[in-house]
Amino acid sequence: MIYITRRERFSSTHRLYRADWDDQKNMEIFGPCSNQNGHGHNFVLFVTIKGKVNPDNGFVMNLKELSPIIKDKVIDKLDHKNLNLDVDFMKNKIPSTENLAIEIWNQLQRPVAEHGASLHCIKVYETENNFVEYFGE
Amino acid sequence: MIYITRRERFSSTHRLYRADWDDQKNMEIFGPCSNQNGHGHNFVLFVTIKGKVNPDNGFVMNLKELSPIIKDKVIDKLDHKNLNLDVDFMKNKIPSTENLAIEIWNQLQRPVAEHGASLHCIKVYETENNFVEYFGE
Amino acid sequence: MIYITRRERFSSTHRLYRADWDDQKNMEIFGPCSNQNGHGHNFVLFVTIKGKVNPDNGFVMNLKELSPIIKDKVIDKLDHKNLNLDVDFMKNKIPSTENLAIEIWNQLQRPVAEHGASLHCIKVYETENNFVEYFGE
Amino acid sequence: MIYITRRERFSSTHRLYRADWDDQKNMEIFGPCSNQNGHGHNFVLFVTIKGKVNPDNGFVMNLKELSPIIKDKVIDKLDHKNLNLDVDFMKNKIPSTENLAIEIWNQLQRPVAEHGASLHCIKVYETENNFVEYFGE
Amino acid sequence: MIYITRRERFSSTHRLYRADWDDQKNMEIFGPCSNQNGHGHNFVLFVTIKGKVNPDNGFVMNLKELSPIIKDKVIDKLDHKNLNLDVDFMKNKIPSTENLAIEIWNQLQRPVAEHGASLHCIKVYETENNFVEYFGE
Amino acid sequence: MIYITRRERFSSTHRLYRADWDDQKNMEIFGPCSNQNGHGHNFVLFVTIKGKVNPDNGFVMNLKELSPIIKDKVIDKLDHKNLNLDVDFMKNKIPSTENLAIEIWNQLQRPVAEHGASLHCIKVYETENNFVEYFGE
Repeated sequence: MIYITRRERFSSTHRLYRADWDDQKNMEIFGPCSNQNGHGHNFVLFVTIKGKVNPDNGFVMNLKELSPIIKDKVIDKLDHKNLNLDVDFMKNKIPSTENLAIEIWNQLQRPVAEHGASLHCIKVYETENNFVEYFGE
Repeated sequence: MIYITRRERFSSTHRLYRADWDDQKNMEIFGPCSNQNGHGHNFVLFVTIKGKVNPDNGFVMNLKELSPIIKDKVIDKLDHKNLNLDVDFMKNKIPSTENLAIEIWNQLQRPVAEHGASLHCIKVYETENNFVEYFGE
Repeated sequence: MIYITRRERFSSTHRLYRADWDDQKNMEIFGPCSNQNGHGHNFVLFVTIKGKVNPDNGFVMNLKELSPIIKDKVIDKLDHKNLNLDVDFMKNKIPSTENLAIEIWNQLQRPVAEHGASLHCIKVYETENNFVEYFGE
Repeated sequence: MIYITRRERFSSTHRLYRADWDDQKNMEIFGPCSNQNGHGHNFVLFVTIKGKVNPDNGFVMNLKELSPIIKDKVIDKLDHKNLNLDVDFMKNKIPSTENLAIEIWNQLQRPVAEHGASLHCIKVYETENNFVEYFGE
Repeated sequence: MIYITRRERFSSTHRLYRADWDDQKNMEIFGPCSNQNGHGHNFVLFVTIKGKVNPDNGFVMNLKELSPIIKDKVIDKLDHKNLNLDVDFMKNKIPSTENLAIEIWNQLQRPVAEHGASLHCIKVYETENNFVEYFGE
Repeated sequence: MIYITRRERFSSTHRLYRADWDDQKNMEIFGPCSNQNGHGHNFVLFVTIKGKVNPDNGFVMNLKELSPIIKDKVIDKLDHKNLNLDVDFMKNKIPSTENLAIEIWNQLQRPVAEHGASLHCIKVYETENNFVEYFGE
């Protein structure tokens, strides 16, 4: 069993808030992350898959196949977008880094499996000082 | 003459567009950077000042004095904000990294001079692959 | 279950040696790390906690609560300090990165638990080429 | 149980291809990685070992002992070399990052064990965007 | 006048040697960099251009125009290539980082000028510890 | 004219203070940097030299010659040392990063000149957020 990780990036805006809370409550819980006109990040995404090495080509999974999946399912939907308004799989969810990692997992788990590998971890950096990891359960 | 640089960060949203252009023209010039709901970045700012070393303390300028100036004049106004809507000194300007660097220079040049040093360079990273430098002229 | 990591930094001096060994023995085991006037590092600390995502706010644990704990229990005690002389929880211990990671765990394990999350890993970089991880057992 | 990691680097050339495939098939599977005159990377290697902290010196394993092992068994054989032609332990293997990580494990597992620690993980970065991890099984 | 820099990467193999020197002389001057089967690097390229900010769009030069020029004139010719054998503009030149920076300048100077900006600096990292800068004279 | 830069590192302890000031005054000016038992950093040094490319070998200056000079004149004297007590060329100087950069310049300027190149810049990082540059005047 070997693990291979691909790093990707997306630059997005988001706002942490709940519509059923007033501004004061949102500010109390989320602080400046609930600024009403939003703020943004250069998110960094690490997608780790695991599997056996294919003796035919020396790969767990050919990155030529993995990269377009990540691009199509995740990066094109998140990059240069507003996570609260523009992203189908984030609708009605608080766009915390935790929820973002979980939903990226949900986008990628099946397509990776269809290529004979297993999704192992989704890691998302929000800033150089904060990141989240999700292993699917 | 010696140069000292302080690195700071701010996480903001912005949108490149001109109100006097239609969506098609904005998209043609600015591409996904004109996404109407915005996108964002972890901007990284490098403020370089120059001066003679003060033999009393070995400093060009005490960072204990420089850091609060940068925080007060720049970071508090930009961090967790929308560069199009929330920032007084960016009003009516296209929030390109170029214009942002120039306006940060304009905020800091006088306060640094009042502490006996000279502002030398403002460097702003928009992503790990793009940055801008401005030397005041 | 999701994992969230906070990165912090502290700049400290230390000296690896044992008082019950002579200089020659200390130099033989610890090399230049036992220089009698000390040496120092920009240590980098990664604190990883794990837990379920709180559906109310999308967080495992609000970083607004985690950061002050790390600052109070760890960073304020280590930053700009001498690890051999100034730090209560390192007294009578060889200040190797291994021991430092274990003692930081001991400082944080209970306060994190009191906030409803679990401490998962303490990772300490001594230099860009060496780091230690401790998972509590 | 504590984990300590040492980072090392090597700059090598390689070519992904199989002699029993023609150029078209190699290009189809490996893309530009099968360029017939080769290409190269600054590989970055992370060697993680685990063990109990020795109370005599505060170490899992003295890096003064670990570093020469890594240098002798791995770095001297890979650095400034051609992975297809110059490296005994890569002979007759496709020099993918996966295979490279496995073979580095095979070089280091026994010597680390002979020093009373256990090899835990070999991590190899091929570029800043791709890396592989191997845990020995 | 403002300066904007674009970072790009290419992974190449090279060998430092002169055909008119014997192996011993090549090894004496170039050391392991003259390994006869080559070695390689993840080169990192920083292209800096300068100019006035265009008030129409806030740019010195639209990166949507600069990036394809760099890709077409430089990256496509160098990435996943052998600098001694595959690159037209490096023919008959010792592929040192110095010479590489100069020849990249020669490829980009005119196309950048044709877009109304000036090429200011070519910076090439060979490893994380070595880089070269060329300003065109 | 081309510029080549070599990056080196040293891990040292220092204390900012003046013996002719009392503790209160030292703390007022230098803050926690005057902690009486010291603190430390992983300093990062960038040595930039300039010169013409030697057509014989493609180098401004052979790094095989430059590296031992930096090691002998600077790194061996600073690494794993106390900048206040152990370093001849820092005696009786406040060990600020500014003064450190100037004194490193003084150590290297002549030996680099004797090898036919010119020292251009000494850049010293104290932390990831602060660095100093000195150009010799």
